[in-house]
Amino acid sequence: MMDMMSRSDLEAALREIGKTRYHSNHPFQMMLQEGRLSRDQVQAWALNRYYYQSMIPVKDSFILARLGTVEMRQEWRERIIDHDGSPEERGGIVKWVALTDGVGLDRDYVMSGEGILPGTRFAVDAYVHFVRERSLLEAIASSLTELFSPNVIGIRTKGMLEHYDFISRETLAYFDKRPVQAKRDSDFALNYCLENATTPKEQLAVIDALKFKCQVLWAQLDALMHAYVEPGNLPFDAWKPGTMLASQPSQAAE
Amino acid sequence: MMDMMSRSDLEAALREIGKTRYHSNHPFQMMLQEGRLSRDQVQAWALNRYYYQSMIPVKDSFILARLGTVEMRQEWRERIIDHDGSPEERGGIVKWVALTDGVGLDRDYVMSGEGILPGTRFAVDAYVHFVRERSLLEAIASSLTELFSPNVIGIRTKGMLEHYDFISRETLAYFDKRPVQAKRDSDFALNYCLENATTPKEQLAVIDALKFKCQVLWAQLDALMHAYVEPGNLPFDAWKPGTMLASQPSQAAE
Repeated sequence: MMDMMSRSDLEAALREIGKTRYHSNHPFQMMLQEGRLSRDQVQAWALNRYYYQSMIPVKDSFILARLGTVEMRQEWRERIIDHDGSPEERGGIVKWVALTDGVGLDRDYVMSGEGILPGTRFAVDAYVHFVRERSLLEAIASSLTELFSPNVIGIRTKGMLEHYDFISRETLAYFDKRPVQAKRDSDFALNYCLENATTPKEQLAVIDALKFKCQVLWAQLDALMHAYVEPGNLPFDAWKPGTMLASQPSQAAE
Repeated sequence: MMDMMSRSDLEAALREIGKTRYHSNHPFQMMLQEGRLSRDQVQAWALNRYYYQSMIPVKDSFILARLGTVEMRQEWRERIIDHDGSPEERGGIVKWVALTDGVGLDRDYVMSGEGILPGTRFAVDAYVHFVRERSLLEAIASSLTELFSPNVIGIRTKGMLEHYDFISRETLAYFDKRPVQAKRDSDFALNYCLENATTPKEQLAVIDALKFKCQVLWAQLDALMHAYVEPGNLPFDAWKPGTMLASQPSQAAE
Protein backbone atom coordinates (compact mmCIF):
# COMPACT_ATOMS: atom_id res chain seq x y z
CA MET A 1 0.00 0.00 0.00
CA MET A 2 1.34 3.39 -0.84
CA ASP A 3 1.74 6.05 1.83
CA MET A 4 -0.46 9.09 2.13
CA MET A 5 0.88 11.88 -0.04
CA SER A 6 0.98 15.50 0.98
CA ARG A 7 -1.42 17.78 -0.79
CA SER A 8 1.35 19.24 -2.89
CA ASP A 9 2.77 15.82 -3.77
CA LEU A 10 -0.63 14.67 -4.98
CA GLU A 11 -0.97 17.81 -7.07
CA ALA A 12 2.50 17.25 -8.51
CA ALA A 13 1.62 13.63 -9.32
CA LEU A 14 -1.50 14.76 -11.17
CA ARG A 15 0.38 17.40 -13.14
CA GLU A 16 3.02 14.84 -14.07
CA ILE A 17 0.31 12.65 -15.62
CA GLY A 18 -0.65 15.56 -17.83
CA LYS A 19 2.93 16.06 -18.98
CA THR A 20 3.21 12.50 -20.24
CA ARG A 21 -0.28 11.19 -20.97
CA TYR A 22 -2.37 14.14 -22.08
CA HIS A 23 -3.40 13.88 -25.72
CA SER A 24 -1.29 16.90 -26.61
CA ASN A 25 1.51 14.31 -26.89
CA HIS A 26 -0.38 12.08 -29.32
CA PRO A 27 1.10 11.77 -32.83
CA PHE A 28 -2.23 12.75 -34.41
CA GLN A 29 -2.34 15.94 -32.36
CA MET A 30 1.20 16.74 -33.45
CA MET A 31 0.25 16.22 -37.08
CA LEU A 32 -2.82 18.42 -36.62
CA GLN A 33 -0.99 21.39 -35.18
CA GLU A 34 2.04 21.07 -37.43
CA GLY A 35 -0.03 21.19 -40.62
CA ARG A 36 0.74 17.60 -41.60
CA LEU A 37 -2.89 16.50 -42.00
CA SER A 38 -4.91 16.68 -45.17
CA ARG A 39 -8.19 18.56 -45.18
CA ASP A 40 -9.96 15.17 -45.12
CA GLN A 41 -8.11 14.22 -41.98
CA VAL A 42 -8.90 17.53 -40.28
CA GLN A 43 -12.55 16.94 -41.21
CA ALA A 44 -12.44 13.47 -39.68
CA TRP A 45 -11.02 14.96 -36.48
CA ALA A 46 -13.68 17.70 -36.31
CA LEU A 47 -16.50 15.24 -37.03
CA ASN A 48 -15.44 12.72 -34.43
CA ARG A 49 -14.66 15.26 -31.78
CA TYR A 50 -18.13 16.71 -32.21
CA TYR A 51 -19.45 13.58 -30.53
CA TYR A 52 -17.14 14.14 -27.58
CA GLN A 53 -18.22 17.77 -27.31
CA SER A 54 -21.89 16.85 -27.55
CA MET A 55 -21.62 14.45 -24.63
CA ILE A 56 -19.85 16.81 -22.23
CA PRO A 57 -23.08 18.35 -20.85
CA VAL A 58 -24.48 14.81 -20.51
CA LYS A 59 -21.58 13.67 -18.36
CA ASP A 60 -21.69 16.93 -16.41
CA SER A 61 -25.41 16.47 -15.80
CA PHE A 62 -24.74 13.06 -14.26
CA ILE A 63 -22.16 14.66 -12.00
CA LEU A 64 -24.54 17.53 -11.20
CA ALA A 65 -27.13 14.98 -10.08
CA ARG A 66 -24.67 13.50 -7.59
CA LEU A 67 -23.07 16.59 -6.04
CA GLY A 68 -25.46 16.85 -3.13
CA THR A 69 -25.28 20.55 -2.23
CA VAL A 70 -26.63 23.78 -3.66
CA GLU A 71 -23.16 25.35 -3.60
CA MET A 72 -21.54 22.50 -5.50
CA ARG A 73 -24.29 22.46 -8.10
CA GLN A 74 -23.97 26.24 -8.55
CA GLU A 75 -20.32 25.74 -9.44
CA TRP A 76 -20.73 22.70 -11.64
CA ARG A 77 -23.72 23.94 -13.65
CA GLU A 78 -21.47 26.59 -15.21
CA ARG A 79 -19.87 23.83 -17.25
CA ILE A 80 -23.22 22.90 -18.71
CA ILE A 81 -24.10 26.52 -19.43
CA ASP A 82 -20.73 26.99 -21.16
CA HIS A 83 -21.37 24.06 -23.46
CA ASP A 84 -25.09 24.45 -24.09
CA GLY A 85 -25.11 28.25 -24.27
CA SER A 86 -28.25 30.37 -24.13
CA PRO A 87 -30.43 32.37 -26.51
CA GLU A 88 -28.06 35.30 -25.91
CA GLU A 89 -24.72 33.52 -26.11
CA ARG A 90 -23.46 30.69 -28.26
CA GLY A 91 -22.34 27.66 -26.29
CA GLY A 92 -19.42 25.36 -26.92
CA ILE A 93 -21.44 22.83 -28.87
CA VAL A 94 -22.77 25.41 -31.34
CA LYS A 95 -19.25 26.75 -31.68
CA TRP A 96 -18.02 23.27 -32.46
CA VAL A 97 -20.65 23.07 -35.19
CA ALA A 98 -19.20 26.35 -36.50
CA LEU A 99 -15.89 24.52 -36.65
CA THR A 100 -17.32 21.55 -38.59
CA ASP A 101 -19.14 24.08 -40.84
CA GLY A 102 -15.87 25.92 -41.27
CA VAL A 103 -13.98 22.85 -42.44
CA GLY A 104 -16.80 22.13 -44.89
CA LEU A 105 -18.86 19.30 -43.41
CA ASP A 106 -22.62 18.99 -43.69
CA ARG A 107 -24.11 20.17 -40.43
CA ASP A 108 -27.01 17.72 -40.16
CA TYR A 109 -24.67 14.84 -40.83
CA VAL A 110 -22.26 15.98 -38.13
CA MET A 111 -25.02 16.42 -35.58
CA SER A 112 -26.51 13.01 -36.36
CA GLY A 113 -23.33 11.36 -35.10
CA GLU A 114 -23.79 8.74 -37.80
CA GLY A 115 -20.38 8.64 -39.35
CA ILE A 116 -18.24 8.66 -36.22
CA LEU A 117 -15.81 5.85 -35.55
CA PRO A 118 -16.88 3.08 -33.17
CA GLY A 119 -13.66 3.80 -31.30
CA THR A 120 -14.84 7.37 -30.72
CA ARG A 121 -18.25 6.30 -29.52
CA PHE A 122 -16.92 3.60 -27.20
CA ALA A 123 -14.33 5.92 -25.64
CA VAL A 124 -16.72 8.83 -25.11
CA ASP A 125 -19.46 6.58 -23.76
CA ALA A 126 -16.92 5.00 -21.41
CA TYR A 127 -16.37 8.48 -19.97
CA VAL A 128 -20.10 9.04 -19.44
CA HIS A 129 -20.45 5.64 -17.78
CA PHE A 130 -17.42 6.30 -15.61
CA VAL A 131 -18.93 9.42 -14.04
CA ARG A 132 -22.16 7.55 -13.35
CA GLU A 133 -20.66 4.41 -11.86
CA ARG A 134 -17.54 5.46 -9.98
CA SER A 135 -17.36 7.44 -6.75
CA LEU A 136 -18.12 11.15 -6.90
CA LEU A 137 -14.47 11.81 -6.11
CA GLU A 138 -13.39 9.79 -9.15
CA ALA A 139 -16.05 11.41 -11.34
CA ILE A 140 -14.74 14.85 -10.44
CA ALA A 141 -11.11 13.76 -10.78
CA SER A 142 -11.77 12.55 -14.31
CA SER A 143 -12.38 16.18 -15.33
CA LEU A 144 -8.86 17.17 -14.34
CA THR A 145 -7.49 16.94 -17.87
CA GLU A 146 -8.67 20.53 -18.04
CA LEU A 147 -5.64 21.41 -15.96
CA PHE A 148 -3.61 20.77 -19.09
CA SER A 149 -5.79 22.19 -21.84
CA PRO A 150 -5.22 25.98 -21.61
CA ASN A 151 -1.61 25.76 -22.72
CA VAL A 152 -2.30 23.25 -25.47
CA ILE A 153 -5.17 25.22 -26.96
CA GLY A 154 -2.88 28.14 -27.73
CA ILE A 155 -0.36 25.94 -29.52
CA ARG A 156 -3.00 24.11 -31.51
CA THR A 157 -4.92 27.22 -32.55
CA LYS A 158 -1.75 28.99 -33.64
CA GLY A 159 -0.56 25.96 -35.58
CA MET A 160 -3.86 25.37 -37.31
CA LEU A 161 -4.25 29.00 -38.38
CA GLU A 162 -0.71 29.05 -39.69
CA HIS A 163 -0.82 25.81 -41.66
CA TYR A 164 -4.32 25.35 -43.05
CA ASP A 165 -5.78 27.89 -45.46
CA PHE A 166 -9.28 26.46 -44.89
CA ILE A 167 -9.16 27.36 -41.18
CA SER A 168 -10.06 30.85 -39.98
CA ARG A 169 -10.05 32.41 -36.55
CA GLU A 170 -13.85 32.34 -36.59
CA THR A 171 -13.78 28.60 -37.36
CA LEU A 172 -11.77 28.10 -34.19
CA ALA A 173 -13.93 30.41 -32.03
CA TYR A 174 -14.74 27.42 -29.82
CA PHE A 175 -11.31 27.66 -28.32
CA ASP A 176 -11.41 31.40 -27.49
CA LYS A 177 -13.07 31.10 -24.11
CA ARG A 178 -11.98 27.60 -23.22
CA PRO A 179 -8.69 28.53 -21.48
CA VAL A 180 -10.47 30.82 -18.99
CA GLN A 181 -13.34 28.38 -18.46
CA ALA A 182 -11.01 25.42 -18.14
CA LYS A 183 -8.86 27.21 -15.60
CA ARG A 184 -11.88 28.16 -13.46
CA ASP A 185 -13.29 24.62 -13.67
CA SER A 186 -10.07 22.77 -13.07
CA ASP A 187 -9.09 24.99 -10.15
CA PHE A 188 -12.36 24.02 -8.51
CA ALA A 189 -12.08 20.32 -9.33
CA LEU A 190 -8.44 20.13 -8.27
CA ASN A 191 -9.19 21.77 -4.97
CA TYR A 192 -12.09 19.38 -4.42
CA CYS A 193 -9.90 16.35 -5.09
CA LEU A 194 -7.02 17.57 -2.89
CA GLU A 195 -9.48 18.23 -0.05
CA ASN A 196 -11.49 15.05 -0.35
CA ALA A 197 -8.88 12.41 -1.11
CA THR A 198 -8.15 11.79 2.55
CA THR A 199 -6.76 8.25 2.40
CA PRO A 200 -3.98 6.72 0.26
CA LYS A 201 -6.64 4.64 -1.47
CA GLU A 202 -8.63 7.73 -2.41
CA GLN A 203 -5.50 9.50 -3.60
CA LEU A 204 -4.74 6.52 -5.82
CA ALA A 205 -8.32 6.56 -7.09
CA VAL A 206 -7.92 10.22 -8.08
CA ILE A 207 -4.71 9.45 -9.94
CA ASP A 208 -6.29 6.47 -11.69
CA ALA A 209 -9.35 8.51 -12.67
CA LEU A 210 -7.13 11.08 -14.35
CA LYS A 211 -5.18 8.33 -16.13
CA PHE A 212 -8.48 6.85 -17.28
CA LYS A 213 -9.57 10.18 -18.71
CA CYS A 214 -6.26 10.53 -20.52
CA GLN A 215 -6.98 7.12 -22.06
CA VAL A 216 -10.41 8.34 -23.19
CA LEU A 217 -8.81 11.25 -25.07
CA TRP A 218 -5.83 9.23 -26.34
CA ALA A 219 -7.99 6.36 -27.62
CA GLN A 220 -10.02 8.81 -29.71
CA LEU A 221 -6.88 9.95 -31.49
CA ASP A 222 -5.68 6.33 -31.84
CA ALA A 223 -8.96 5.55 -33.60
CA LEU A 224 -8.54 8.55 -35.94
CA MET A 225 -4.93 7.62 -36.65
CA HIS A 226 -5.81 4.04 -37.44
CA ALA A 227 -8.81 4.83 -39.63
CA TYR A 228 -7.72 8.01 -41.43
CA VAL A 229 -3.91 8.09 -41.41
CA GLU A 230 -2.94 4.43 -41.75
CA PRO A 231 -4.38 3.27 -45.08
CA GLY A 232 -6.98 0.57 -45.55
CA ASN A 233 -8.58 0.54 -42.13
CA LEU A 234 -11.81 2.48 -42.50
CA PRO A 235 -14.53 0.67 -40.48
CA PHE A 236 -18.05 0.03 -41.82
CA ASP A 237 -20.34 3.07 -41.77
CA ALA A 238 -17.54 5.46 -40.84
CA TRP A 239 -17.46 8.78 -42.65
CA LYS A 240 -15.75 8.49 -46.03
CA PRO A 241 -13.46 11.36 -47.06
CA GLY A 242 -15.00 13.45 -49.83
CA THR A 243 -18.57 12.76 -48.74
CA MET A 244 -21.09 14.66 -46.63
CA LEU A 245 -19.56 18.01 -47.50
CA ALA A 246 -21.47 21.24 -47.01
CA SER A 247 -23.42 22.11 -50.13
CA GLN A 248 -22.08 25.67 -50.30
CA PRO A 249 -19.12 27.64 -48.99
CA SER A 250 -19.83 27.54 -45.31
CA GLN A 251 -20.28 30.37 -42.88
CA ALA A 252 -19.91 29.99 -39.16
CA ALA A 253 -23.03 28.77 -37.39
CA GLU A 254 -25.23 31.51 -36.00
CA MET B 1 -39.79 4.33 -42.87
CA MET B 2 -38.92 0.89 -44.09
CA ASP B 3 -41.60 -1.74 -44.63
CA MET B 4 -42.10 -4.73 -42.42
CA MET B 5 -39.90 -7.60 -43.54
CA SER B 6 -40.96 -11.20 -43.66
CA ARG B 7 -39.42 -13.47 -41.08
CA SER B 8 -37.16 -15.03 -43.68
CA ASP B 9 -36.11 -11.65 -45.08
CA LEU B 10 -35.13 -10.46 -41.63
CA GLU B 11 -33.12 -13.63 -41.06
CA ALA B 12 -31.43 -13.16 -44.43
CA ALA B 13 -30.60 -9.54 -43.57
CA LEU B 14 -29.03 -10.65 -40.31
CA ARG B 15 -26.97 -13.35 -41.98
CA GLU B 16 -25.79 -10.86 -44.59
CA ILE B 17 -24.41 -8.65 -41.81
CA GLY B 18 -22.34 -11.58 -40.66
CA LYS B 19 -20.91 -12.17 -44.10
CA THR B 20 -19.57 -8.65 -44.36
CA ARG B 21 -19.09 -7.28 -40.87
CA TYR B 22 -18.19 -10.21 -38.63
CA HIS B 23 -14.64 -9.98 -37.34
CA SER B 24 -13.65 -13.07 -39.31
CA ASN B 25 -13.11 -10.55 -42.14
CA HIS B 26 -10.77 -8.33 -40.12
CA PRO B 27 -7.16 -8.11 -41.34
CA PHE B 28 -5.85 -9.04 -37.88
CA GLN B 29 -7.97 -12.19 -37.84
CA MET B 30 -6.64 -13.10 -41.28
CA MET B 31 -3.08 -12.63 -40.08
CA LEU B 32 -3.81 -14.75 -37.01
CA GLN B 33 -5.18 -17.72 -38.87
CA GLU B 34 -2.69 -17.52 -41.73
CA GLY B 35 0.33 -17.64 -39.45
CA ARG B 36 1.42 -14.09 -40.20
CA LEU B 37 1.57 -12.93 -36.59
CA SER B 38 4.58 -13.14 -34.32
CA ARG B 39 4.31 -14.94 -31.02
CA ASP B 40 4.20 -11.52 -29.32
CA GLN B 41 1.21 -10.55 -31.42
CA VAL B 42 -0.61 -13.80 -30.67
CA GLN B 43 0.07 -13.16 -27.00
CA ALA B 44 -1.38 -9.66 -27.29
CA TRP B 45 -4.50 -11.12 -28.91
CA ALA B 46 -4.92 -13.79 -26.22
CA LEU B 47 -4.35 -11.30 -23.41
CA ASN B 48 -6.82 -8.75 -24.71
CA ARG B 49 -9.46 -11.25 -25.65
CA TYR B 50 -9.32 -12.64 -22.11
CA TYR B 51 -11.01 -9.45 -20.99
CA TYR B 52 -13.80 -9.99 -23.49
CA GLN B 53 -14.23 -13.61 -22.36
CA SER B 54 -14.24 -12.60 -18.71
CA MET B 55 -17.09 -10.15 -19.24
CA ILE B 56 -19.39 -12.53 -21.13
CA PRO B 57 -21.03 -13.95 -17.99
CA VAL B 58 -21.39 -10.40 -16.70
CA LYS B 59 -23.31 -9.26 -19.77
CA ASP B 60 -25.32 -12.50 -19.73
CA SER B 61 -26.19 -11.93 -16.08
CA PHE B 62 -27.60 -8.52 -16.92
CA ILE B 63 -29.71 -10.14 -19.64
CA LEU B 64 -30.73 -12.94 -17.26
CA ALA B 65 -31.99 -10.32 -14.82
CA ARG B 66 -34.25 -8.86 -17.50
CA LEU B 67 -35.75 -11.94 -19.13
CA GLY B 68 -38.82 -12.08 -16.96
CA THR B 69 -39.80 -15.77 -17.13
CA VAL B 70 -38.54 -18.98 -15.61
CA GLU B 71 -38.37 -20.64 -19.03
CA MET B 72 -36.30 -17.87 -20.60
CA ARG B 73 -33.92 -17.83 -17.66
CA GLN B 74 -33.51 -21.60 -17.86
CA GLU B 75 -32.36 -21.20 -21.45
CA TRP B 76 -30.13 -18.21 -20.93
CA ARG B 77 -28.37 -19.40 -17.78
CA GLU B 78 -26.70 -22.13 -19.85
CA ARG B 79 -24.48 -19.45 -21.34
CA ILE B 80 -23.25 -18.46 -17.91
CA ILE B 81 -22.69 -22.08 -16.91
CA ASP B 82 -20.72 -22.65 -20.13
CA HIS B 83 -18.41 -19.75 -19.39
CA ASP B 84 -18.07 -20.07 -15.63
CA GLY B 85 -17.99 -23.89 -15.52
CA SER B 86 -18.37 -25.91 -12.34
CA PRO B 87 -16.18 -27.90 -9.96
CA GLU B 88 -16.69 -30.88 -12.30
CA GLU B 89 -16.21 -29.18 -15.64
CA ARG B 90 -13.91 -26.42 -16.82
CA GLY B 91 -15.75 -23.39 -18.15
CA GLY B 92 -14.85 -21.16 -21.05
CA ILE B 93 -13.00 -18.61 -18.94
CA VAL B 94 -10.70 -21.21 -17.37
CA LYS B 95 -10.13 -22.64 -20.83
CA TRP B 96 -9.17 -19.21 -22.07
CA VAL B 97 -6.65 -18.99 -19.25
CA ALA B 98 -5.30 -22.32 -20.52
CA LEU B 99 -4.86 -20.56 -23.85
CA THR B 100 -2.98 -17.62 -22.34
CA ASP B 101 -0.93 -20.14 -20.30
CA GLY B 102 -0.29 -22.06 -23.49
CA VAL B 103 1.07 -19.04 -25.34
CA GLY B 104 3.32 -18.30 -22.37
CA LEU B 105 1.74 -15.42 -20.48
CA ASP B 106 1.74 -15.02 -16.72
CA ARG B 107 -1.63 -16.12 -15.46
CA ASP B 108 -2.06 -13.60 -12.64
CA TYR B 109 -1.18 -10.78 -14.98
CA VAL B 110 -3.70 -11.93 -17.57
CA MET B 111 -6.46 -12.26 -15.00
CA SER B 112 -5.72 -8.83 -13.51
CA GLY B 113 -6.72 -7.22 -16.82
CA GLU B 114 -3.99 -4.64 -16.20
CA GLY B 115 -2.20 -4.66 -19.51
CA ILE B 116 -5.16 -4.67 -21.87
CA LEU B 117 -5.60 -1.89 -24.39
CA PRO B 118 -7.99 0.95 -23.56
CA GLY B 119 -9.63 0.19 -26.90
CA THR B 120 -10.36 -3.34 -25.69
CA ARG B 121 -11.80 -2.17 -22.41
CA PHE B 122 -13.95 0.54 -23.95
CA ALA B 123 -15.37 -1.80 -26.60
CA VAL B 124 -16.13 -4.66 -24.19
CA ASP B 125 -17.62 -2.33 -21.62
CA ALA B 126 -19.76 -0.76 -24.35
CA TYR B 127 -21.23 -4.22 -24.93
CA VAL B 128 -22.04 -4.69 -21.25
CA HIS B 129 -23.65 -1.25 -21.08
CA PHE B 130 -25.61 -1.93 -24.25
CA VAL B 131 -27.35 -4.99 -22.80
CA ARG B 132 -28.24 -3.03 -19.67
CA GLU B 133 -29.53 0.08 -21.34
CA ARG B 134 -31.21 -0.99 -24.57
CA SER B 135 -34.45 -2.92 -24.95
CA LEU B 136 -34.44 -6.63 -24.11
CA LEU B 137 -34.96 -7.35 -27.79
CA GLU B 138 -31.81 -5.39 -28.68
CA ALA B 139 -29.86 -6.99 -25.84
CA ILE B 140 -30.73 -10.44 -27.15
CA ALA B 141 -30.09 -9.44 -30.76
CA SER B 142 -26.61 -8.27 -29.86
CA SER B 143 -25.71 -11.90 -29.11
CA LEU B 144 -26.46 -12.96 -32.68
CA THR B 145 -22.83 -12.81 -33.77
CA GLU B 146 -22.80 -16.38 -32.52
CA LEU B 147 -24.67 -17.29 -35.68
CA PHE B 148 -21.39 -16.74 -37.49
CA SER B 149 -18.84 -18.17 -35.08
CA PRO B 150 -19.10 -21.97 -35.59
CA ASN B 151 -17.70 -21.83 -39.10
CA VAL B 152 -14.97 -19.37 -38.26
CA ILE B 153 -13.74 -21.31 -35.25
CA GLY B 154 -12.86 -24.30 -37.43
CA ILE B 155 -10.84 -22.19 -39.85
CA ARG B 156 -9.02 -20.33 -37.11
CA THR B 157 -8.21 -23.42 -35.06
CA LYS B 158 -6.91 -25.29 -38.09
CA GLY B 159 -4.82 -22.32 -39.19
CA MET B 160 -3.33 -21.68 -35.79
CA LEU B 161 -2.39 -25.34 -35.25
CA GLU B 162 -0.81 -25.49 -38.67
CA HIS B 163 1.22 -22.29 -38.47
CA TYR B 164 2.33 -21.76 -34.90
CA ASP B 165 4.58 -24.33 -33.21
CA PHE B 166 3.78 -22.81 -29.80
CA ILE B 167 0.09 -23.64 -30.17
CA SER B 168 -1.26 -27.08 -29.29
CA ARG B 169 -4.71 -28.58 -29.54
CA GLU B 170 -4.95 -28.42 -25.74
CA THR B 171 -4.10 -24.70 -25.83
CA LEU B 172 -7.10 -24.18 -28.08
CA ALA B 173 -9.45 -26.40 -26.05
CA TYR B 174 -11.65 -23.35 -25.45
CA PHE B 175 -12.91 -23.64 -28.99
CA ASP B 176 -13.81 -27.35 -28.89
CA LYS B 177 -17.29 -26.94 -27.47
CA ARG B 178 -18.03 -23.47 -28.72
CA PRO B 179 -19.54 -24.43 -32.09
CA VAL B 180 -22.19 -26.65 -30.46
CA GLN B 181 -22.88 -24.13 -27.68
CA ALA B 182 -22.98 -21.21 -30.09
CA LYS B 183 -25.40 -23.01 -32.39
CA ARG B 184 -27.74 -23.85 -29.52
CA ASP B 185 -27.57 -20.30 -28.16
CA SER B 186 -27.91 -18.50 -31.46
CA ASP B 187 -30.80 -20.70 -32.60
CA PHE B 188 -32.66 -19.63 -29.48
CA ALA B 189 -31.74 -15.94 -29.78
CA LEU B 190 -32.52 -15.80 -33.49
CA ASN B 191 -35.91 -17.39 -32.96
CA TYR B 192 -36.62 -14.93 -30.15
CA CYS B 193 -35.74 -11.95 -32.35
CA LEU B 194 -37.73 -13.18 -35.35
CA GLU B 195 -40.76 -13.75 -33.10
CA ASN B 196 -40.54 -10.52 -31.13
CA ALA B 197 -39.56 -7.95 -33.72
CA THR B 198 -43.14 -7.29 -34.73
CA THR B 199 -42.79 -3.78 -36.18
CA PRO B 200 -40.44 -2.34 -38.81
CA LYS B 201 -38.87 -0.24 -36.08
CA GLU B 202 -38.14 -3.31 -33.96
CA GLN B 203 -36.75 -5.16 -36.97
CA LEU B 204 -34.42 -2.25 -37.62
CA ALA B 205 -33.42 -2.23 -33.95
CA VAL B 206 -32.49 -5.92 -34.21
CA ILE B 207 -30.38 -5.24 -37.29
CA ASP B 208 -28.68 -2.28 -35.64
CA ALA B 209 -27.98 -4.27 -32.48
CA LEU B 210 -26.20 -6.90 -34.52
CA LYS B 211 -24.22 -4.23 -36.38
CA PHE B 212 -23.30 -2.69 -33.03
CA LYS B 213 -22.01 -6.04 -31.78
CA CYS B 214 -19.96 -6.49 -34.94
CA GLN B 215 -18.41 -3.10 -34.18
CA VAL B 216 -17.58 -4.26 -30.65
CA LEU B 217 -15.65 -7.23 -32.04
CA TRP B 218 -14.11 -5.31 -34.96
CA ALA B 219 -12.93 -2.42 -32.77
CA GLN B 220 -11.05 -4.86 -30.53
CA LEU B 221 -9.06 -6.10 -33.52
CA ASP B 222 -8.54 -2.52 -34.75
CA ALA B 223 -7.02 -1.70 -31.37
CA LEU B 224 -4.72 -4.75 -31.55
CA MET B 225 -3.73 -3.92 -35.12
CA HIS B 226 -2.92 -0.32 -34.25
CA ALA B 227 -0.98 -1.09 -31.08
CA TYR B 228 0.82 -4.31 -31.97
CA VAL B 229 1.10 -4.49 -35.75
CA GLU B 230 1.59 -0.85 -36.77
CA PRO B 231 4.82 0.27 -35.10
CA GLY B 232 5.15 3.02 -32.52
CA ASN B 233 1.61 3.13 -31.19
CA LEU B 234 1.70 1.25 -27.89
CA PRO B 235 -0.47 3.16 -25.38
CA PHE B 236 0.61 3.85 -21.80
CA ASP B 237 0.33 0.87 -19.45
CA ALA B 238 -0.44 -1.58 -22.26
CA TRP B 239 1.32 -4.93 -22.16
CA LYS B 240 4.81 -4.74 -23.60
CA PRO B 241 5.94 -7.67 -25.76
CA GLY B 242 8.55 -9.76 -23.98
CA THR B 243 7.22 -8.97 -20.51
CA MET B 244 4.89 -10.79 -18.11
CA LEU B 245 5.80 -14.18 -19.49
CA ALA B 246 5.10 -17.36 -17.55
CA SER B 247 8.05 -18.20 -15.33
CA GLN B 248 8.27 -21.77 -16.60
CA PRO B 249 7.20 -23.78 -19.63
CA SER B 250 3.48 -23.58 -19.26
CA GLN B 251 0.98 -26.37 -18.91
CA ALA B 252 -2.69 -25.97 -19.59
CA ALA B 253 -4.71 -24.71 -16.64
CA GLU B 254 -6.28 -27.39 -14.48
